[in-house]
Amino acid sequence: MKVIDGGVLAAKGFKASGVHCGIRKNKDKLDIALIYSEKRCSAAATYTKNLVKGAPLVVTKNHISDGYAQAIICNSGNANTCNINGMDIANETCKLLANKLGIKENDIVIASTGVIGQEMDIKPFEIGVPMLVDALDKGTSEEANLAIMTTDTKQKTIAVEFEIDGVKCHIGGIAKGSGMINPNMATMLVFITTDCNISPKLLQKTLSEDILDTFNMVSVDGDTSTNDMVTVLANGMAGNKEIDEKTLPEFAKALNMVTKTLCKMIAADGEGASRSLTCSLSGAKTKDQARKIAKSVISSNLLKCAIFGSDANWGRVLCAIGYTLEDIDVLKIDVAFRSSKGTIPVCKNGLGVPFSEEIAKEILLEKDIFIDVNLNSGSYSAEAFGCDLTYEYVKINGDYRS
Amino acid sequence: MKVIDGGVLAAKGFKASGVHCGIRKNKDKLDIALIYSEKRCSAAATYTKNLVKGAPLVVTKNHISDGYAQAIICNSGNANTCNINGMDIANETCKLLANKLGIKENDIVIASTGVIGQEMDIKPFEIGVPMLVDALDKGTSEEANLAIMTTDTKQKTIAVEFEIDGVKCHIGGIAKGSGMINPNMATMLVFITTDCNISPKLLQKTLSEDILDTFNMVSVDGDTSTNDMVTVLANGMAGNKEIDEKTLPEFAKALNMVTKTLCKMIAADGEGASRSLTCSLSGAKTKDQARKIAKSVISSNLLKCAIFGSDANWGRVLCAIGYTLEDIDVLKIDVAFRSSKGTIPVCKNGLGVPFSEEIAKEILLEKDIFIDVNLNSGSYSAEAFGCDLTYEYVKINGDYRS
Repeated sequence: MKVIDGGVLAAKGFKASGVHCGIRKNKDKLDIALIYSEKRCSAAATYTKNLVKGAPLVVTKNHISDGYAQAIICNSGNANTCNINGMDIANETCKLLANKLGIKENDIVIASTGVIGQEMDIKPFEIGVPMLVDALDKGTSEEANLAIMTTDTKQKTIAVEFEIDGVKCHIGGIAKGSGMINPNMATMLVFITTDCNISPKLLQKTLSEDILDTFNMVSVDGDTSTNDMVTVLANGMAGNKEIDEKTLPEFAKALNMVTKTLCKMIAADGEGASRSLTCSLSGAKTKDQARKIAKSVISSNLLKCAIFGSDANWGRVLCAIGYTLEDIDVLKIDVAFRSSKGTIPVCKNGLGVPFSEEIAKEILLEKDIFIDVNLNSGSYSAEAFGCDLTYEYVKINGDYRS
Repeated sequence: MKVIDGGVLAAKGFKASGVHCGIRKNKDKLDIALIYSEKRCSAAATYTKNLVKGAPLVVTKNHISDGYAQAIICNSGNANTCNINGMDIANETCKLLANKLGIKENDIVIASTGVIGQEMDIKPFEIGVPMLVDALDKGTSEEANLAIMTTDTKQKTIAVEFEIDGVKCHIGGIAKGSGMINPNMATMLVFITTDCNISPKLLQKTLSEDILDTFNMVSVDGDTSTNDMVTVLANGMAGNKEIDEKTLPEFAKALNMVTKTLCKMIAADGEGASRSLTCSLSGAKTKDQARKIAKSVISSNLLKCAIFGSDANWGRVLCAIGYTLEDIDVLKIDVAFRSSKGTIPVCKNGLGVPFSEEIAKEILLEKDIFIDVNLNSGSYSAEAFGCDLTYEYVKINGDYRS
């Protein structure tokens, strides 16, 4: 498997575009994106567990209930959630796009991100849909990526090439993250394309298992959005024999490379983040325990502030482990801080060990910080992905709607 | 019932003191407090549910297992948690105090607050305990309050006078709050004294019920501390007939006045807070649902930032309601923002209603902000108490240990 360029266009038979259609005031900001496959695709998706769900999620879930889709349309600037005309806007947009592309309405995945609770106008979509379709031939994955971004400061994209039974296959994805990020059963907006030949059922199963260790292990601020969605479209144009249980591990591994990379990008570009934070947890009694504790650690506001201040305040790690109420033996816990500058053990058997504050500071001044926790009580491990809590996060979210 | 001065000394027969004994470097900061009753008291306490528990909590729980206590000693500057000599320090301190006061070791409640995981020295306690006892005759509730504060910017104290069967009784309390505040079954450090005559069993029952709607409904940052504790000592010196089920409501009401006031003070003085935040939730199907949703709303980082920015971003209220996964009908939810400047409805039946941003801003610029949520699905209500999330919170917690 190797990492390649191309994002959602790395897989054969996909096109993409992004344009400004007027949902956002700033004319320089692309605000609507399209991803299109020449051939109808096996489709899989996971959605937010938040009971307040955006209208686009309801429409998408209905559309791909048959396991197939051919295009993804997504706007930023308005979440199309908790507004009176949400379903009308989502359905009408699909109708406009289906007509222009000459495909069926229920082969369209639709998503939105932005402010919740603001009424939408269909006009920008009437303008944007034809522009998007006309731009497909020359459009890029980057344009689609830029169009779905909100407070993101960086594009999040990755693609890989790998082989199944000797046939070259590709998976690529784009994502938007930044704030209101604490996915539960799905996440943020992530669009993944592949030219693999895989059945809708197996695609959904693989995605649903993958997110347990990827998108569900990311937290920027503990707030689970109303519009989280991960979608994979697989058009089979790589020409491989349809993936079965035997070849599935290769596919799952490549998918995981894409999803995990996007997770890390989302965490590192969390709103206001100056550092990415990974909790690498081992020695848990169960997989579920490992995930729960790792996520609790990277979600602690206090620890996130300490990391912002490069302060090796490991008591906050133990505190965050303790309030999961998981069945653990506190007096077996080891904790170390790690970065490219080295590793420093700070807690052994639940108690502090002497360490050099200077070396700890040097380690914690790096961009990518790892918190290694060993519960020494079992053989399960998990990773969780977060970021520090900064002045900038507060600033961004103090006046998001303006 | 009327509010009176005196804090923990408002009740008859109590003395208190606070001194600097050297746990903290800053000589101007009092760092150890004592509360003492002339008579042995019925004692009740609730503790953090965090599995990582401070040594003082373990010792206190053991000491008051017989239902009685006579003194409370509490230091700030070190949590005496996850350090190798924690139990020794806590036990030795109780021994020193018991000898000096001439009471039994197991009539002493001990508590600590500060940094987790740092070894302690017994020397400051050897110096401090005699100083505290010698200072009792001239000591004040304020000194005890100052000595237990960490990043608190304000003292938190309240006392009330009320009658039971025509006999004047008193309850008073002091608290420290500020950060790592999201109590679960107990909270922060709160010491309450009363001269009521009440059995240990009834006192514990009343306290355990009270905290469900008071301390357990406070959150500053979602981090449940390892050292939370609420203690009530009742010495019976008011001379009332021992409280029974008939007179209990009067006592419970007075206790609730004290606990709820301390809760609001703790929320308003949350680390870095510029505004207090109360979610007043009604129309829930069960009491538990009401509490869970109200607490979710005031705990949302995103909403807390919006309140800091005086931004009426009510979508974040609905988002926080939704991710509780409670059984609710989103299309029945009403939301309004309220302060002394008035009330502004922003969401009706789960959908946005037009409102003046100017008026909303004016309301949200006040110090005490209320978020009124009506689920319109039942008859249960609850209140939760929090604060906004500010630059200052990040600053304080970026370098707490220095």
